[in-house]
Amino acid sequence: MKICIFGGDGFCGWPTALYLSSQGHEIYIVDNLSRRKIDIDLGCDSLTPIDTIENRLQAWRDVEGKEILFKHLDTAKEYQELVNFLEDFKPDAVVHFAEQRSAPFSMKNPKAKRYTVDNNINSTHNILCAIVELKLNTHVVHLGTMGVYGYGTAGMQIPEGYLDVWIETNSKEGLETAKKENILYPADPGSIYHMTKTQDALLFQYYNKNDGIRVTDLHQGVVWGTETDETKKDVRLINRFDYDGDYGTVLNRFMMQAAINHPLTVHGTGGQTRAFIHISDMTKCIEIALNNPPKRNDRVQIFNQMTETHRVRDIANMISKYTGVEVAYIDNPRNEDAENELHVCNDCFIDLGLEPTLLDTSLLDEIKNISEKYKDRCNLEKIICTSKWSR
Amino acid sequence: MKICIFGGDGFCGWPTALYLSSQGHEIYIVDNLSRRKIDIDLGCDSLTPIDTIENRLQAWRDVEGKEILFKHLDTAKEYQELVNFLEDFKPDAVVHFAEQRSAPFSMKNPKAKRYTVDNNINSTHNILCAIVELKLNTHVVHLGTMGVYGYGTAGMQIPEGYLDVWIETNSKEGLETAKKENILYPADPGSIYHMTKTQDALLFQYYNKNDGIRVTDLHQGVVWGTETDETKKDVRLINRFDYDGDYGTVLNRFMMQAAINHPLTVHGTGGQTRAFIHISDMTKCIEIALNNPPKRNDRVQIFNQMTETHRVRDIANMISKYTGVEVAYIDNPRNEDAENELHVCNDCFIDLGLEPTLLDTSLLDEIKNISEKYKDRCNLEKIICTSKWSR
Repeated sequence: MKICIFGGDGFCGWPTALYLSSQGHEIYIVDNLSRRKIDIDLGCDSLTPIDTIENRLQAWRDVEGKEILFKHLDTAKEYQELVNFLEDFKPDAVVHFAEQRSAPFSMKNPKAKRYTVDNNINSTHNILCAIVELKLNTHVVHLGTMGVYGYGTAGMQIPEGYLDVWIETNSKEGLETAKKENILYPADPGSIYHMTKTQDALLFQYYNKNDGIRVTDLHQGVVWGTETDETKKDVRLINRFDYDGDYGTVLNRFMMQAAINHPLTVHGTGGQTRAFIHISDMTKCIEIALNNPPKRNDRVQIFNQMTETHRVRDIANMISKYTGVEVAYIDNPRNEDAENELHVCNDCFIDLGLEPTLLDTSLLDEIKNISEKYKDRCNLEKIICTSKWSR
Repeated sequence: MKICIFGGDGFCGWPTALYLSSQGHEIYIVDNLSRRKIDIDLGCDSLTPIDTIENRLQAWRDVEGKEILFKHLDTAKEYQELVNFLEDFKPDAVVHFAEQRSAPFSMKNPKAKRYTVDNNINSTHNILCAIVELKLNTHVVHLGTMGVYGYGTAGMQIPEGYLDVWIETNSKEGLETAKKENILYPADPGSIYHMTKTQDALLFQYYNKNDGIRVTDLHQGVVWGTETDETKKDVRLINRFDYDGDYGTVLNRFMMQAAINHPLTVHGTGGQTRAFIHISDMTKCIEIALNNPPKRNDRVQIFNQMTETHRVRDIANMISKYTGVEVAYIDNPRNEDAENELHVCNDCFIDLGLEPTLLDTSLLDEIKNISEKYKDRCNLEKIICTSKWSR
C-alpha cells in the first residue's frame, strides 16, 4: 500500500512510519518538523536523544534496507505544495497526525490557543480539500482522541463514535412516540486541543457526506511507552520521549519522575480515569485501520483506540510501589471533575485482532530502558505543568 | 449599551448598526471590507449603489446627528489589533457577523472553501480568545444559520439549539432504563459555509464551559428584503442587494429576475423548504438578543431567528403570479434532498415581542422599490449559480 504519514516525524508518527515500512508498505513522511521547533520555544527537549529526520531515514536504510521518503511541508500553510505532492504520490491512504497534540500547550496562552486552532483545522481541511480537488480515492486515517467524548458519562459505556438515542418525533410528549436514531456522539471537549478534534470530526462528516471521502477516525487514549520493535533496531531510530508539563503524557511523566526520584505529581485528587494504549499497540491499530477501510459510501468509521482504563492516582501508586518514589498531590490546572468513571468500548480493534500490551506487565521495563537510561538529560524545571485552564 | 459590530459594513451588519444606533446605543463598526473585495474578484456589484463606509457614516451624522465609529480591521488575521481595540472600547456586547456567509461561494473552488474555513473559524476564535485574554464580561451575539440543523428532520419541529433525547444508561437494552438528556442539536450542515457555523458552535460551547463567556447564537433563516427604516433615510445609507448566483439569497434573486423579466430560476424541483426572515426583523431580533443576554454561568443561548417557512417553488410561483414572469426549473447544483419538510420553533423571539414582517404583504413593495428601480445596474451574466457541490 502507498501510505503518506502526515506528521511522520512526531511521537506517534515516527514509530508508525517504521512499523508500516517494516510490513512492506511504501511510506512517504510529510512533516514540517514543528514539534522539534516547539521544543526550542519551550526550552525543552526529548529525554531521548532523537536524531535528525535525515539520519533517522539513513539508519532505516542501513538496518532494514528499506527506503522511507520525506517531504518537508506544512499541511496547514502550503496548500499548493500539498496538492502537488498528493498528485505525484497518489497514496492509497494517508495517516493524519499533523496536528498540535498537547492539551496543556493548547491552554498555555492566546498565541498557543490560536496556533492550535489555526494549525489543526486548516491542516485537516487542506488534506480533505486536496483529495477532493484531485479526485483521489485515498482512505484518510485520522488520529482523534478519547477526549472528544468528555468525561461526564455517568457510568455509561462509551460507544465507538456514534450513540443510539431516542428522539420524540411529534408534538405528543413521551417515549411511546420516540424514534431511534444513531447520532455522532455529542462532543464535550476538555481543552482547546480536544475541541479542535471535535471540529475535525465535523469536517470528516461533511466531506464524507458531500464528496464520499472514506475516513477512519481513531479516538485514541493516552499513549504511553517510547520504543517499538522497530525503533529499538538502531539508536538513530529512537523515538522521542516527552516528560515536560506540556507535552509529557501522564504515564511517561510519572516514569521520568520515578527515575530521578522526583515526587509523582498527581493533579487534584488523581481521581480522573483515563484510557491508555501502549505505543506499539498504537502502530498495530493504525495498520488494522488501514487494512479495514470503510467501503465507498460508508459513513465515517470511528474506532476507540485504547486498551485499558485507570485512575491517575492508581497509576501513580503502582509506580510508587515499584520504585519507592512518593506521590505528591498538587493543584489541578485543568477545569474538570475531580473524579470520573470511564467505561470504553473497544470491540472494533479487539475483534480485528489487536492483542493489547498491558500496563502492569510492561511498565517496569519502560522505566529501566528509557527513563533511567537517559535521566541525566532531564531538565528538572520543565516537569511541572504551568499551563492553566482558568483565567 | 456599548456595542461592537464585527462585519458592520455587510448586508446584515450595516442595517443592524444603524438600527442599534437609532435606538441610542454607542456603536463601533469593525470590518475589513472583505465583502466589497469579493465583489471585485467575482466581477459583481451590489444592485443598489452602496456608498463608501466613510460616506455612509457621514450621512448618518447628517440625517440622524449620531456618530458611528469605524475601525478597519481583519478579525481573522489581526489579533493584536483586535485585542488593542477591545481593550480600548470595552464593549458591553459584540455582534459577530464577520464571516464569509455564502454557501455557494464556499463551494466554488478549493480557494473559496479554504478561505471560508480559515476566515470563519479564526475570526470567531480570535474574538473569543481576546475577550478571555482581556477578562471582559462582554456578551457575544453571533449570527449562525438554520442550516446547522440540516433538512432531514422528518416532520419533527426543530427546537431552538438543543434537543431532548433519551439515552440508555447501562447495558440493559431498552427504553425503560433510558435517561433524558438535553444535547446540542446534532449538526448536519449542507455546505462548507454551514459547516463552519457548526464548528463555531463548538467554539462557543467550549469557551462558555471553560471561561464562562456569555454567548447568544442566532440560527438565522434566509434573509430577504433590502431596506430598513434607517437605510431609507438617505440614499448614501442604502443597503447592499445581492442578486448574483453566489451571494444572492433565493428570494432576492427571484425579485431581481422578476424586475428584469428573467425566468425565475428554481433549483431542482423547488421542493426545498426554507425558513425566512425580513431584514428589518433581523435587526429587531439582534436588539432583542442584546437586551436579553444569558446570565453568568448560563449555557450558550440559542434562538431560531426566522419568521416563516416556504417551499422555494411556492415563492417562485407567488412572485410569478404577481409579476407574470415565468418559472424555470434548472439542475440543482447542491447535494440535497429534492423535497423536505421544515417545522421550526421560534417561540423565544415571539415571546420576547418580535412582530414579524410577512412575505406575502411586503414582497411587492420590495420588488418595486429596489429591484425595478435599480434593474439597469444588473449584470445578466452573474444571475445563475455556477458553484457546484459535487465533483
